[in-house]
Amino acid sequence: MSLTNLGTKQVQEKDRTFVFHPSTHLAKHSRGETPNRIMAGAEGVYIWDTEGRKSLDGFGGLYCVNMGYGCTEIADAIAKQAHDLPFAHVYASQGTEPVARLAEAVVEYFGQNMQRVYFGLSGSDANETNIKLVWYYNNVLGRPEKKKIISRHRGYHGSGLVTGSLTGLPFFHKFFDLPLNLVRHTTTPHYYRQAHEGETEEAFSKRCADELEALVLAEGPETVAAFIGEPALGTGGIVPPPRGYWAAIQEVLDRHDILLIADEVVCGFARTGEKFGSHLYRMRPDFVTIAKGVSSAYLPISGSIIGDRVWSVLEEGTEKNGPLGHGWTYSGHTLCAAAALANIQVLKERKILEHVQDVGPYWLSRMKAELEGHPIVGEVRGVGILSAVELMRDPKARVPFEPELQVGARAAAALLENGVIGRAMPHGDILGFAPPLIITRAEIDIIVDATAKSVDTTYRALKAEGAV
Amino acid sequence: MSLTNLGTKQVQEKDRTFVFHPSTHLAKHSRGETPNRIMAGAEGVYIWDTEGRKSLDGFGGLYCVNMGYGCTEIADAIAKQAHDLPFAHVYASQGTEPVARLAEAVVEYFGQNMQRVYFGLSGSDANETNIKLVWYYNNVLGRPEKKKIISRHRGYHGSGLVTGSLTGLPFFHKFFDLPLNLVRHTTTPHYYRQAHEGETEEAFSKRCADELEALVLAEGPETVAAFIGEPALGTGGIVPPPRGYWAAIQEVLDRHDILLIADEVVCGFARTGEKFGSHLYRMRPDFVTIAKGVSSAYLPISGSIIGDRVWSVLEEGTEKNGPLGHGWTYSGHTLCAAAALANIQVLKERKILEHVQDVGPYWLSRMKAELEGHPIVGEVRGVGILSAVELMRDPKARVPFEPELQVGARAAAALLENGVIGRAMPHGDILGFAPPLIITRAEIDIIVDATAKSVDTTYRALKAEGAV
Repeated sequence: MSLTNLGTKQVQEKDRTFVFHPSTHLAKHSRGETPNRIMAGAEGVYIWDTEGRKSLDGFGGLYCVNMGYGCTEIADAIAKQAHDLPFAHVYASQGTEPVARLAEAVVEYFGQNMQRVYFGLSGSDANETNIKLVWYYNNVLGRPEKKKIISRHRGYHGSGLVTGSLTGLPFFHKFFDLPLNLVRHTTTPHYYRQAHEGETEEAFSKRCADELEALVLAEGPETVAAFIGEPALGTGGIVPPPRGYWAAIQEVLDRHDILLIADEVVCGFARTGEKFGSHLYRMRPDFVTIAKGVSSAYLPISGSIIGDRVWSVLEEGTEKNGPLGHGWTYSGHTLCAAAALANIQVLKERKILEHVQDVGPYWLSRMKAELEGHPIVGEVRGVGILSAVELMRDPKARVPFEPELQVGARAAAALLENGVIGRAMPHGDILGFAPPLIITRAEIDIIVDATAKSVDTTYRALKAEGAV
Repeated sequence: MSLTNLGTKQVQEKDRTFVFHPSTHLAKHSRGETPNRIMAGAEGVYIWDTEGRKSLDGFGGLYCVNMGYGCTEIADAIAKQAHDLPFAHVYASQGTEPVARLAEAVVEYFGQNMQRVYFGLSGSDANETNIKLVWYYNNVLGRPEKKKIISRHRGYHGSGLVTGSLTGLPFFHKFFDLPLNLVRHTTTPHYYRQAHEGETEEAFSKRCADELEALVLAEGPETVAAFIGEPALGTGGIVPPPRGYWAAIQEVLDRHDILLIADEVVCGFARTGEKFGSHLYRMRPDFVTIAKGVSSAYLPISGSIIGDRVWSVLEEGTEKNGPLGHGWTYSGHTLCAAAALANIQVLKERKILEHVQDVGPYWLSRMKAELEGHPIVGEVRGVGILSAVELMRDPKARVPFEPELQVGARAAAALLENGVIGRAMPHGDILGFAPPLIITRAEIDIIVDATAKSVDTTYRALKAEGAV
């Protein structure tokens, strides 16, 4: 068990004094009023801190450590490439073997009509690339007005100025003047929360598509360039779409010549029980955003996979205009590409997709069996090895808890006490789960049992306080 | 010498079929009409391809491999951390030892009034973070109108939608609808190209500051939030500022309560012969953007170093508003942080700063001795181990070559034939140099001699064609 060199207190002192943490209360962190856990090592689905306290990581980092911790094949590939050649740029047609082989592996793993991969570092920068290319595409086609992007409320597509605008969550907008005006948001496809009384899933999907079309018509189809969506919503609450949703959406997009960007950062690489969420829901994307699962987070790498109708226009654009002026120094970073290539080899060799297809339904059925019907459980949902438990004051009438009660955060804290990391999602009182895909049935049982116990503990505490 | 596993032809075939390269003519690349060199290994200042052809890398990758290739200490640190714990997120106050120690090392290396580091992956994403925080800062201060960012023509600050807007180079704007309206550009501080007949450097600097102030007043100081600049211009042509420039600019910023973002992606970590360009030019930044040299590109990592007056407002903001809704999954990536920490240790232990102070002046004086006065050399300039040779049709009258002659690209191709990689900068006919900082005098001689020879070869070829 690898622990710390410096000792916990000394690391925490440095951390409080020098580190600006994402999504953190900065003042409380500086004063040492937040739980400043220092992580030190990990193996399989377990991670531990400098005090030796071990937790089952039910969120796989941030839904990214798909092959689990301690995967020797990936670590060995990193060590070898680090000594051979850590970095050579890929600007202006220069290449490396890891990047060429990774691009082939990615395009082939997606299949369909995909042509090329532009590599970046994060899902945010890949979506940034996608939007730039959507604009370039319409400029080449002589449609300079067709530039607006439609996203969904509760979608998550990044945290930059434009990508944070694509994101449809107030937590990422407020005090940052987002969203910028080039983005519009349409209906969240969450049947449990959004459907009208008595509306079927199919009817709700039809309504989502109708509301999208109404938005497109109101804006003017000649101004709408692309629609971006996660196959199943991720950070917005882990919500698989209602039946018929993507087929209905795709019809609207086809009718108005609107490109589809499938943001597969969370769903891609076997998470949902198919290779990509796009396959599961029969989407026909023009762009596919990948990150997280492509390297299991061992190193940062993302990508924009480009479909044929866009690729041919991009090529035409460079015939007219010369080289395309877009690039990050670390596009196609050699060492990161080698890590991702090893990760995809592990994914295939260990038959992880088949494993997800095997244990995914077990996970969801056990979660439902243990938690559905509990007095504060509104919905238990999921797909593959991705699931959520939504807590509500009145599950039937769909009345949420008051945000200041912080019920989600309290349930996550209780879960951690019970040895399991689950994530209190940033919107609503939702416990999210996305453990490493290598998780076993026995480990699934541990998560499910701890979740049931923790939700109940939270409920009893709320009751004791007179809050329910 | 580590070469390829698959053979050059097979890698090139995959590369052409699957890889979308940055800053590349996509159609020509697909057809195999561009030089598709596959890089395979490197050591010190040399890099070689799958055919065993070795080049002296006079541009250090993309001014990033500062400690040189084959640095065992960094590679070993990567290998160890890859096996111990490649990734743990740092959201919501969670930490790791590599991130805490790196943050301390970075803040202390900059010194002055710096308080915290927010880690990202690329210079682009760090500048994205900076702009978000500038906006947040002014929202907390109750100045919602103070949001515009001023950059310089020929500045380079990234390639995203907003960061590409900060960039002041047409190559990164055209066909992408950039710059977005939230950015304004002011005068390029390039004395050789921009100064009036008979104007002194100091007078030119004063004029740059006056033109900035006129722009601020025209926009309304209450709408201008920040000024961003590289201490010495990088991708815009490697241009150290004229004497007195930053002092004059700083006065204008102080007068109108405008924050200063020092983009140190190229200049930082000893490149200029001081720890940071900000130190050399006595800038007083509120934000410092770092990338490249912080890890010597062994792994991708960037950072926003935050000065005291901004940090205290950010803390105040979270007191009022709760956790700050900004974050990338790979903010503070454990393995990337370990690589950067090892890199900074090497930088200090090998006394690289002192080395740059020693060989930098030798480099520039030799470059001037060999190239100034040549019939097509307009200017030889530089600082530390960063320099450029600008080619002009008429050096005295400052008349450039016609872009279609591609004189810069031809000179870079001749240089490569002579065994040295220099970069044809994307704006003008400029050969840029930024080799690893470990370069020796003997290796500097090789670059200078090859450059002189290549410029002369290019001149003779142009003459033979009747182009000069």
